[in-house]
Amino acid sequence: MTQYQPKPEHKFTFGLWTVGNPGSDPFGSAVRETISAPYIVEKLAELGAWGVNFHDNDLIPADATPEQERQIKKDFRAALDATGLVVPMATTNLFKDPIFRDGAFTSADARVRAYAIQKTMKAMDLGAEFGAETYVFWGGREGTEVDAGSRTLDAMAWFREALNFLAEYNISQGYNYKFALEPKPNEPRGDIFLPTVGAALGFIATLDHPEMVGVNPEFAHDTMAGLSFPHAIAQAIDAGKLFHVDLNDQKMGRFDQDLRFGSENYKSAFYTVKLLEDSGYQGPRHFDAHALRTEDYDGVWEFARGCMRTYLILKDKVEQYNADEEIQAALAEYFVKDEALSGLTARFSPENAQKLKDTSFDLDGIRSKGRGLEKIDQLTAEVLLGVRGK
Amino acid sequence: MTQYQPKPEHKFTFGLWTVGNPGSDPFGSAVRETISAPYIVEKLAELGAWGVNFHDNDLIPADATPEQERQIKKDFRAALDATGLVVPMATTNLFKDPIFRDGAFTSADARVRAYAIQKTMKAMDLGAEFGAETYVFWGGREGTEVDAGSRTLDAMAWFREALNFLAEYNISQGYNYKFALEPKPNEPRGDIFLPTVGAALGFIATLDHPEMVGVNPEFAHDTMAGLSFPHAIAQAIDAGKLFHVDLNDQKMGRFDQDLRFGSENYKSAFYTVKLLEDSGYQGPRHFDAHALRTEDYDGVWEFARGCMRTYLILKDKVEQYNADEEIQAALAEYFVKDEALSGLTARFSPENAQKLKDTSFDLDGIRSKGRGLEKIDQLTAEVLLGVRGK
Amino acid sequence: MTQYQPKPEHKFTFGLWTVGNPGSDPFGSAVRETISAPYIVEKLAELGAWGVNFHDNDLIPADATPEQERQIKKDFRAALDATGLVVPMATTNLFKDPIFRDGAFTSADARVRAYAIQKTMKAMDLGAEFGAETYVFWGGREGTEVDAGSRTLDAMAWFREALNFLAEYNISQGYNYKFALEPKPNEPRGDIFLPTVGAALGFIATLDHPEMVGVNPEFAHDTMAGLSFPHAIAQAIDAGKLFHVDLNDQKMGRFDQDLRFGSENYKSAFYTVKLLEDSGYQGPRHFDAHALRTEDYDGVWEFARGCMRTYLILKDKVEQYNADEEIQAALAEYFVKDEALSGLTARFSPENAQKLKDTSFDLDGIRSKGRGLEKIDQLTAEVLLGVRGK
Amino acid sequence: MTQYQPKPEHKFTFGLWTVGNPGSDPFGSAVRETISAPYIVEKLAELGAWGVNFHDNDLIPADATPEQERQIKKDFRAALDATGLVVPMATTNLFKDPIFRDGAFTSADARVRAYAIQKTMKAMDLGAEFGAETYVFWGGREGTEVDAGSRTLDAMAWFREALNFLAEYNISQGYNYKFALEPKPNEPRGDIFLPTVGAALGFIATLDHPEMVGVNPEFAHDTMAGLSFPHAIAQAIDAGKLFHVDLNDQKMGRFDQDLRFGSENYKSAFYTVKLLEDSGYQGPRHFDAHALRTEDYDGVWEFARGCMRTYLILKDKVEQYNADEEIQAALAEYFVKDEALSGLTARFSPENAQKLKDTSFDLDGIRSKGRGLEKIDQLTAEVLLGVRGK
Repeated sequence: MTQYQPKPEHKFTFGLWTVGNPGSDPFGSAVRETISAPYIVEKLAELGAWGVNFHDNDLIPADATPEQERQIKKDFRAALDATGLVVPMATTNLFKDPIFRDGAFTSADARVRAYAIQKTMKAMDLGAEFGAETYVFWGGREGTEVDAGSRTLDAMAWFREALNFLAEYNISQGYNYKFALEPKPNEPRGDIFLPTVGAALGFIATLDHPEMVGVNPEFAHDTMAGLSFPHAIAQAIDAGKLFHVDLNDQKMGRFDQDLRFGSENYKSAFYTVKLLEDSGYQGPRHFDAHALRTEDYDGVWEFARGCMRTYLILKDKVEQYNADEEIQAALAEYFVKDEALSGLTARFSPENAQKLKDTSFDLDGIRSKGRGLEKIDQLTAEVLLGVRGK
Repeated sequence: MTQYQPKPEHKFTFGLWTVGNPGSDPFGSAVRETISAPYIVEKLAELGAWGVNFHDNDLIPADATPEQERQIKKDFRAALDATGLVVPMATTNLFKDPIFRDGAFTSADARVRAYAIQKTMKAMDLGAEFGAETYVFWGGREGTEVDAGSRTLDAMAWFREALNFLAEYNISQGYNYKFALEPKPNEPRGDIFLPTVGAALGFIATLDHPEMVGVNPEFAHDTMAGLSFPHAIAQAIDAGKLFHVDLNDQKMGRFDQDLRFGSENYKSAFYTVKLLEDSGYQGPRHFDAHALRTEDYDGVWEFARGCMRTYLILKDKVEQYNADEEIQAALAEYFVKDEALSGLTARFSPENAQKLKDTSFDLDGIRSKGRGLEKIDQLTAEVLLGVRGK
Repeated sequence: MTQYQPKPEHKFTFGLWTVGNPGSDPFGSAVRETISAPYIVEKLAELGAWGVNFHDNDLIPADATPEQERQIKKDFRAALDATGLVVPMATTNLFKDPIFRDGAFTSADARVRAYAIQKTMKAMDLGAEFGAETYVFWGGREGTEVDAGSRTLDAMAWFREALNFLAEYNISQGYNYKFALEPKPNEPRGDIFLPTVGAALGFIATLDHPEMVGVNPEFAHDTMAGLSFPHAIAQAIDAGKLFHVDLNDQKMGRFDQDLRFGSENYKSAFYTVKLLEDSGYQGPRHFDAHALRTEDYDGVWEFARGCMRTYLILKDKVEQYNADEEIQAALAEYFVKDEALSGLTARFSPENAQKLKDTSFDLDGIRSKGRGLEKIDQLTAEVLLGVRGK
Repeated sequence: MTQYQPKPEHKFTFGLWTVGNPGSDPFGSAVRETISAPYIVEKLAELGAWGVNFHDNDLIPADATPEQERQIKKDFRAALDATGLVVPMATTNLFKDPIFRDGAFTSADARVRAYAIQKTMKAMDLGAEFGAETYVFWGGREGTEVDAGSRTLDAMAWFREALNFLAEYNISQGYNYKFALEPKPNEPRGDIFLPTVGAALGFIATLDHPEMVGVNPEFAHDTMAGLSFPHAIAQAIDAGKLFHVDLNDQKMGRFDQDLRFGSENYKSAFYTVKLLEDSGYQGPRHFDAHALRTEDYDGVWEFARGCMRTYLILKDKVEQYNADEEIQAALAEYFVKDEALSGLTARFSPENAQKLKDTSFDLDGIRSKGRGLEKIDQLTAEVLLGVRGK
C-alpha cells in the first residue's frame, strides 16, 4: 500500500474550492456543510498534498470586514506554517458575482471591465502575500450566448487590454508571477472565448508580454469538446507554455463534471502523466476536481486520496512502459529513421530542396508495410490493465 | 499467457467484413488486399474464434453468376466444416449500392422499398442455408439529411411494414430467426432513424411480432451519441431483448471508429462484460470492428487477437470484482434495504398507499449520509488497473 | 405585429420554474429576485399564455406549514380564476433535496425509493386539485456516475415498480392522469437512465399500464445527445405516445441550456412545429426554458414573448411551406409511387412474397436518378429565411 | 430573383474536389460519374463563381505520364482563359495514398516525411503555374489513434520542420504564397494534431516565418467539436491571420458532413458572413462542401447555386441588421461606455493602477440591470426569419 503514498515531493495540490465544494448543482442544493480554509489545509497535509491554491473569495469572502480579513489571513498562515503546505497558485473569482453575468474583462460594460481589473490587482496582491508564483486566469464568464453586434472582436481586444495591463502591474509590483490562461469550451457560457488550449496559445502570441504568459490546461475542459487532452498538453509543452496543469476527469460532450482524476479515461490519464513525467514538467500537479454530490466528507477525502493515488499508479505504469522491452522494441520499429533524408529536410537550402525533389522513393515498399500500432496499443492496454507477463 | 486464450466456448465471432476490411476511408483508398472468405474462416479458427457472420454480399458478390455463387458456397462450407466454425448470424447489405442512397426499407421510392425487401428475403435464405439463427437489421441508410415533408412519419410506417412482412416470411419459411435491430445515431446519414438502443426497443413495441424482434446493440454506436453503452445493454437485458451484441470501441462525439474492443474505454468495456457475464447472456460475443488503417494483415490478426484477449482479461476482472471482499462490503452498505417499506411499494393496494402516505421518514438522517461511491469507484479502478493488493 | 400575437387557443404554457427562474448556475449566484406564483400567472396571462404548470415545491415550499399551504393555494386559485389560466400539467420535484442525491425511484436506498413514491402521490393529489390532466416524470437524479455492482438492472426494476404503483394509485384515485416520461441524456447525473425519447418508449412497453404512459420529449434533451429532435417526436407520434412536449433550444454536445424556443436551431424548430401542427397534436405547447442569466425581469418577459412569437412565426411558415407549389411539386417527385409493388409489400402472403422475389427491377434506372433533396432543402431554407419570391 | 445572383466580384470559389465529388462514403460506393476539370470550370463560371481551387492530384492524377500532364494543363488553362475563372488557392493531397496512412509531415517514418515535403514542393510549383496566391495545408492524416511513445511531441517538431522548410522554399522560388493552415479535430484520424483554429494560431507562433502563415478555418471543422465558428474566425481576424476561409455546414458532434453552406446552422452562417463582410475580409469565399450523396449532377449544381445564393441572402441580412434602427439602439444600450474608466485601463501606469484600485463602483446598480440580450437575439432571429416589420 505504501507504494502509492503521496508525498510533498510529488507536488500534489488542491484548490480550497475543490475539497471544500459543498455539492450544489443546477438542480440541487448543497449536500455538504462549508468547511474552513485552515481545516482544509490540515486535512490536505495529512493526506500527503504539497500545496493549496485559492481564488480571492475562497479565502476572503467578498463581504468580509478588514478585521475579519486580517483574522482569516492569520489563521490561514498559521495552518500553512503548521503543516508546511505551500500556496503555489492563486486566481480571481470573476464568475460568481452577478456583476460578471455577461463577462468580466470582456464585458460590453466598461465599468465591469474596469472593476474586473481592479479585483484582479487586489487578488494578485493577496496571492503574492502567500507566495503564489503562478497566477491563473480562467475566464468562465468571458463568452456569449448571443453574438451581439461585433462583440467577439471587441472582446478579443478588451481581453488583451486587460492582460497587458495586469502584466505591467505584475512587473511594476515585482510579483514575478507567471500568468497561466485556462481555457474551457463552454459552461457557464454557451460559448466561452478562447475555448481550447490551442486558442489560448494563439492568443498569447498577440500579447505585449508573451513570455510571461502560458497555459493552465484542464483535463476536463478540452475533453468536453471531444479533443485529446494529451495532444493539448503536448502542444503546450512543445511551445514552452505549460505553466500549470489542472487534473481531473470527464466524459466527452457533456457538462463540466470535474471528476476524480483517472476515474473515467484511464488511457488519456496515463498519456497525460507520461507527458508530464517524461517531459520533465516541474510544476504542481493540481487537482481541479470535486467529489461526487453523492458523497459526504468521508467520500470527499476518499476522492482526494484517490486523485493522488491514481496519479502515482499511473506514474508507476509510465516507468513500466518505458522499461518494457517488447514495447520499446515495437516503438523502435515504428520510428523508421533515414539519416540521409532527415539531413535533407532538417534545414532548407536550394541544394537540399533540389536533391529532395530528385529523390526517388520506394513508394510501394513503404505502402505495403503496416505500422504495427494495433500491437503497440494492445501492449499499452495490458500495461494499464496490469496483466503484462500474465 | 494461456490464461487469456480464446476458445470456442467463449462464443467469439467476427464478420467477414471486419477482419476482411481493406481499410479505405472517406479520404483514402484501400491499404490492404481483399482476402477470401475461406481464408478468413481458417484464420479465425486458428485464433480461437467460434463463429463467423456475413452480409449477403460479403459472401456472394452482387454480380456473381449462379455458377460462381455455387462455387463460393461450396468453398465456404468446406472451410466451415474443416474448422468447425459456425455461422450464428447473417444480415443484408442495404447500404453500399447507390440504389439505397436515400434509404432501403424507408426510401421515399416505393420501388427501392420493394427491392430492399426482396434482397432481404434472398439474404435470409442464404443465412438459413448456413444455419444462422439471428438475423440482424442495421438500417444504415434509413435516415435523412433533409426532412422532406412528412418523411419521418412515413419512414416509421414503411420500416414497420417491411419488418412485419419479413417476420411473416420468417415464419412461413420456418427459419426461426430471431431478428435483432442494430441502432446507430448517424453516419452514413446525417441522422439515422431509430438512433439508439432505446429507440429500437420503443419501435419493437409497435410491430406485429414483437416477441420475434430484439436488439443488437453496438458499443460504438450509442457511444457516438455520448450515451452509456452499459446502460443501453442493461435496458435491453431488462426488456428481455438482448438478442445479439456488437463489441468494439469508440471515442464519443465523432465518426464511427469501430476500434478494437477494449482499446479506448476500459471502464465501459468492463461494465459491458460484467453485464453480459453476470446476466447469463448466452449469445455470441461478436466483434464488429476493424483494424486501424495504419495496419497490414499482421496488424489485422493482432487486432483480432486483441479483441478476444481483452474480453477475457476483463471477464477475469469481473470475477475478481465479484469476489473482492472489500468491494462487496462497500456494495452491501450501498444497497440499503428496508423490508417494511419495500413490502409497501412492491405492489399497489389502497392500504399500502395509505400506509406509505402516513409513513414518517428520518429525512435528515438519510440526507446526511454519503453514498460511498468515490470509494467504490476507486476500488473498481484499482481492479481494472490491476493493482488491488499492492 | 398582431399577426404573431399569442392567444389561449394556441395552448402555450410555461412552468412556474421557467419565468420564475432566478438565474443561478454552477458558477454563479442568483441574479433575479424570486417572484410569486400569482404574479407569474398574471404576467403569463397578460402575454397571451393559456396555462401554467408546476412541480409540487414550485407552488408549496417543502417547509410550508399547513396554514401557509392553504393560503398559497387560495392565492394561486384566485390568480387562475382572475386570468382564466389553466393548469394542464403537474410534476414532482425529485431532484433538489439532498435526499435524492443518488436517485429517487431508483435510489439504492429503499427508504429513498419509498419516500419518492410518497412525495409523488402527494404531488399528484396537488396537481389533481388544480385540474392537471398530464403528470410528468422527469427522473433527473435517476442515473449514475458510478455503475456500482448491478445497479442499472436494479434501477430498471425499481423504476418500473414505482411507475406501476403510481399508475394504480392514479386509477384508484380516479385522477385520470396521463403519465408522460421526460427523458434526458445527462445532467445533473453523469448518465441518466432512459436517456432518450426512444429509451422512454422502450421502457413503457415493459410497464403494467402502457396505455396510460407516454412521453414528454424536450427539445434540448435529445439535442444535447446530438440527436434529431424532429425524429424523436416523430417516433413518439408514430407510437401514439406524444402526450406532452417541452419546447426550448440548445446547442448540441454541451450542458443543458434551456434557451428560448427557436433561438438557435431554426430549422429543427421549424420541423418540430411542422410535426406538431401537421399531426394534429392537441396538447399544450409547453416552454420549458428560462431567460439567459444576463437578463433582469424585462429580459424574462422578452424571453417569454419570444418563445410564443417564434412558434407562431414558424407555424406561419409551415402553412407557407405546405402551400408552396414549387415545394409541393418537388415533394411529389420525391415520393415515387408504385401501386403494384406497394400492393405486394403491404401485407405478407406466400404469394406476394414469391411475386416479389420474382420481380425484376430496373436497378440502373433507379440508381442513376438523384433524389432532388438539395433543391428541396434550399427551398425550405428560403421559406425559413423569408426570401421566397424574392 | 436577380437580387441574389452571384457575380465574380463576390469572390466565390469551389474546389475541383467539391462539385466533382462522386459521392462515395465509408459505407457506399460512388453514385456519380467523374467529371473533367475543364467541364467543372465551365459549369462554375456559368453559375457565377469567381475561381476554382485544386489539390495537385485533383488536376494531375498521381499516375499521369508527362505527356498526359501537359495535355491536362493545356486543357485546364484553356478552360480558365475561356471563362475568366482564376485559381486563387492550391493545396497538396497528402491523405489519399496509403503511404500517408499514419501521417505525412508527421509520420514516424522519416521517408514518408521527406516524400511529403517533396510532393508539396512539386504541388507548390503546379499551383504557382496557375497563379495561386494562397497555399493551404490540411493535415488530414497528421494525427493518431494510438499515442505511441513520445509521438505527439515528435510530431509537433516534424510538422514545424516541414513548414519551415517549405516557407524557405516559397521564398527561394519567389512564389509569394501565403500559407494557410486548415485545422480539423478528427476524421480521418481519431485525433488530428492542431485540431482547432486556435491550435493552428498557437502553432504559427512557433514557426520561423510566422508572418507568412495564417489559417484557413472551415465552418464544419470547428463545428464538429461543438465550438462556435464565428468565434473561431473572430480570433483569426483579431490576430490578422484570416488568410482564407472554407464555407460549408455541419451538425455538431458527428462525422464531417461538408453540407451546403447555410443549410443547417442559419444563425452561425449569418454571423460568419457578418464577420467576413464587416471586417473587410478581401479573400475568396471558398465553398469546401459537396452535394449530398442522394443527388445526381442536377442536384450538384443546385447545391453549388445554393451555397452562393444563401451567402448573398445572408449578406443582405447583414446589411439589414446593420441598418435596423431598433437593433442598433439596443446595441448602443448594450455597449456601456465610460470614458474615464476606459482611460485608466487603456494603458498601464502606476498612477492609473492606483486610481483604478481606489475607484469605488456602484456595484449594486450595475448588478441589478439586465443586459437586454433576449431582446437583441429575438430581433436578430426576426431579421433572419425575414419577418421584421410584420
